[in-house]
Amino acid sequence: MDVEKAPSAGGARLFIGIDLGGTKIASALVDADMKTMGRVTVATRPEEGPDAVIGRMLGTVWELCEGHGCGVGDVGAIGIGCPGPLDQETGIVLDAPNLMWKNVSVAAPVAQATGLPVCVENDANVAALAENRMGAGRGARHMMYVTVSTGIGSGLILDGRLYVGAMGAAGELGHVTMLADGPLCGCGNRGCLESLASGTAIAQRAREAAARPAGAGILEAANGDIDAIDSALVALAATGGDATAQAIMRAAFEYLGTAVANVLNLLNLDMVVIGGGVAQVGDVLFDTVKRMIELRAMACMARDVRVVPALLGADAGALGAACCAAERLTKYVP
Amino acid sequence: MDVEKAPSAGGARLFIGIDLGGTKIASALVDADMKTMGRVTVATRPEEGPDAVIGRMLGTVWELCEGHGCGVGDVGAIGIGCPGPLDQETGIVLDAPNLMWKNVSVAAPVAQATGLPVCVENDANVAALAENRMGAGRGARHMMYVTVSTGIGSGLILDGRLYVGAMGAAGELGHVTMLADGPLCGCGNRGCLESLASGTAIAQRAREAAARPAGAGILEAANGDIDAIDSALVALAATGGDATAQAIMRAAFEYLGTAVANVLNLLNLDMVVIGGGVAQVGDVLFDTVKRMIELRAMACMARDVRVVPALLGADAGALGAACCAAERLTKYVP
Repeated sequence: MDVEKAPSAGGARLFIGIDLGGTKIASALVDADMKTMGRVTVATRPEEGPDAVIGRMLGTVWELCEGHGCGVGDVGAIGIGCPGPLDQETGIVLDAPNLMWKNVSVAAPVAQATGLPVCVENDANVAALAENRMGAGRGARHMMYVTVSTGIGSGLILDGRLYVGAMGAAGELGHVTMLADGPLCGCGNRGCLESLASGTAIAQRAREAAARPAGAGILEAANGDIDAIDSALVALAATGGDATAQAIMRAAFEYLGTAVANVLNLLNLDMVVIGGGVAQVGDVLFDTVKRMIELRAMACMARDVRVVPALLGADAGALGAACCAAERLTKYVP
Repeated sequence: MDVEKAPSAGGARLFIGIDLGGTKIASALVDADMKTMGRVTVATRPEEGPDAVIGRMLGTVWELCEGHGCGVGDVGAIGIGCPGPLDQETGIVLDAPNLMWKNVSVAAPVAQATGLPVCVENDANVAALAENRMGAGRGARHMMYVTVSTGIGSGLILDGRLYVGAMGAAGELGHVTMLADGPLCGCGNRGCLESLASGTAIAQRAREAAARPAGAGILEAANGDIDAIDSALVALAATGGDATAQAIMRAAFEYLGTAVANVLNLLNLDMVVIGGGVAQVGDVLFDTVKRMIELRAMACMARDVRVVPALLGADAGALGAACCAAERLTKYVP
């Protein structure tokens, strides 16, 4: 579909990306070089209902245009990165628990209010696109982006393009089974990667350990309050030399590394970009993942792959949504 | 690159595919509708060395043309499906133990002798292409072909095209880790799918069982000769009602099903085609794989996927190699 370099069909040299999260809406205006021209962040307040949230999303659009001194007609397209399963064709968010949304049409009202083409895409997918087009994965033709935070998500760039699969739902690395009889996962399956290696899983293992003598150091770090134990606290205890905290982190990242090695064997990627809150621990995660790749992936798959931290942080969602809109809805060629 | 429907750039309406195996070379001549116009099979005899094997491959080309009453100049391109890791760019087979080949240039001598464009591709990949273009996977846009025989291999069709990854090595489903401390695999890793669910693994588990009282039925089916136990014999014993044989088959296919479910979660495929000798057991394999998908894959991934037996059997290699040549080397559009 892409036949010429930007500017787009309508002569537009600007794109807007909106990262719709459970707590905040982060929007960005980018130019045809995908340089950020403006940023606006507002609270989501999902308790006020979909109409109010969509109204606030539109507010960020007007504010970005005003800040840049342009009209909404100067924008080529708007992309929205959303949580949960969604329908890219109809622009409907099917099920987003943290927004309390079921079957909410997002693209249509934004398109109607702005007169612009609008697309929606999964938040991990747009983050993958952002890291590939302007972040740590720049230049990689076959790449996986993995985000490790309270859950685990991923997005795939295959043959240079965002891969979304048959129903647009690809990239659920968090729900590959890593341990047949492992912990129960929120999805109903047992032993999903997410139930073994997410921030939530790390905190859970640490709380279990804190009830035993070996977890005394973790309990002390939490000032004796088991409920205060989260993955950041476990990371801190591990850095401070607590052996139990270190073992919990290592076990989690070994599962993550094995899952990544499995994807390498299947997809022969040239890059894996890892972001999300838990990835902030740095070396202990990356070193463990690399060790598991060495151990588990075939030599030819392990040899040339680069495993690197994400670069764009909290900006990935809005920037990736803008990339997605530019590439999917206009003649923009990355 | 593909801009027009067949016939190809050179006006060719014929393509040749060669399936180079350890015991036989199976070649086919197909027309622009990918209909088989001729078949020739000869022994490989790898012990005579690469030059002799390549000579016999060329012999099948002359024979196919003679049989069809055409000249080699009427053929648009030749594709060769080869075992082992290979370099698609240079047409070199890097390491094929069953041919006793290391770094053997295959495409160049065939191109030189015939004056035709020649490509080489992994045998599981060309079989995947054949099943997608003319077999059980026809019409599927996102498909995995899995072959379960002495080993386990796979090939991926993503977004309608054969996906080979960064170095052309994608599709090693046989070497994803399914059990961290599982049996040692030929690749050096532990707990690879191949070490748990291949024909070789099934036979190995049955031989271990045959040394125990529970394996008496299997041992009897092998006339008391443990070394005579192979996966076909285990399948026969299972069909005959032997509980141990049934349990061995079920355990193997549960690992296979979990691996397939993991791929579905990652790639959101619309079809999985399973072939190879072990898949001939039929229902017990397919029912178990489907049950594991139901249990392990996310509902949205499991709902619309079809899991079906391969259709092309031993023809898949040669036909897929012909498809690969047509699509990669000429303007043929599938």
